[in-house]
Amino acid sequence: MRQAVTAAHACRLVNHGPTVLVTSAHGGRRNVMAAAWSMPVEFTPPRVAVVIDKSTYTRELVLASGRFALNLPCRAMADVAYTVGSTSGRDEDKFARLNLATFDGSTPGLPLLGDCVAWLECRRIPEPHAEAKYDTFFGEVVAAWADDRVFANGRWSFRDDNTALHTLHHLGGGHFALPAATLQGRKL
Amino acid sequence: MRQAVTAAHACRLVNHGPTVLVTSAHGGRRNVMAAAWSMPVEFTPPRVAVVIDKSTYTRELVLASGRFALNLPCRAMADVAYTVGSTSGRDEDKFARLNLATFDGSTPGLPLLGDCVAWLECRRIPEPHAEAKYDTFFGEVVAAWADDRVFANGRWSFRDDNTALHTLHHLGGGHFALPAATLQGRKL
Repeated sequence: MRQAVTAAHACRLVNHGPTVLVTSAHGGRRNVMAAAWSMPVEFTPPRVAVVIDKSTYTRELVLASGRFALNLPCRAMADVAYTVGSTSGRDEDKFARLNLATFDGSTPGLPLLGDCVAWLECRRIPEPHAEAKYDTFFGEVVAAWADDRVFANGRWSFRDDNTALHTLHHLGGGHFALPAATLQGRKL
Repeated sequence: MRQAVTAAHACRLVNHGPTVLVTSAHGGRRNVMAAAWSMPVEFTPPRVAVVIDKSTYTRELVLASGRFALNLPCRAMADVAYTVGSTSGRDEDKFARLNLATFDGSTPGLPLLGDCVAWLECRRIPEPHAEAKYDTFFGEVVAAWADDRVFANGRWSFRDDNTALHTLHHLGGGHFALPAATLQGRKL
């Protein structure tokens, strides 16, 4: 079940380097693209950075609306993650073609992907230089959500009984690594 | 065995979101810190971003030398990764205390960690605004290396027979996820 994640725990959602799907919308248009390149940059307030190439339709929508969401796809969505990273929303509405369910979070008009396992709704912090030179967009997380079957009490819980919900980590060419094991480091 | 990774493949090393250990040195001082927050920002030329907090000793050394390296620790190094992320190099030489082997890559004086599985030597691209506001440092990868038992022909190969060499993905509190399974997405 989808639960709100507190601001203090929002960056935990992307701390381990998952591939994300970036959703955006403006003026009746919407899009979703895959991004392997994102990271937190601050815990409090929660802020993230994500690379959005100049060629993308998503970039137009983010610049026009000032909003974007990072949706975390899971193992069950690997084909969707690969596909939305290989086609352009200028050519087709990917939601419609792939029959992607969406829901509304707390940002009016910003579609969130129903089959993902975590969501970060972000407000773009305008940084024209970083956007131009590195395609790097900074965003403040205004709301976050997670599926409590795999993220609860501020922690991911990757177990043998929830493998379909494990996050994806893109190796290249549609090949993904999955966090199928975990371990606890000790202080030396 | 350690092999050079071509510039075209350098960003593949960190595409899947591994935790990295940042090494740096200047004027006879050296340090290593853990960073869960890094990402590629460009394939060609290969460039990365990494968050280096204002409080860190590493930041002093990177600003003074203009150089840093991202070293990728593996499963066998989880305790080291956790420990160097929990102590400050101002208080002690972590290499000495933890008996960390180092080697020289192509950047004079920049220590690389011998027991890691991949290495990106970087030249800082000065971005004072992003560094001040987001603790985000941009770097151009000037050389990259990987252990060919787990990365070869431009690809990671996480298998059952090399689990000790799998990358670490920090979940928080010294708890790491490991890419113990992989899958190939299909285009829909």
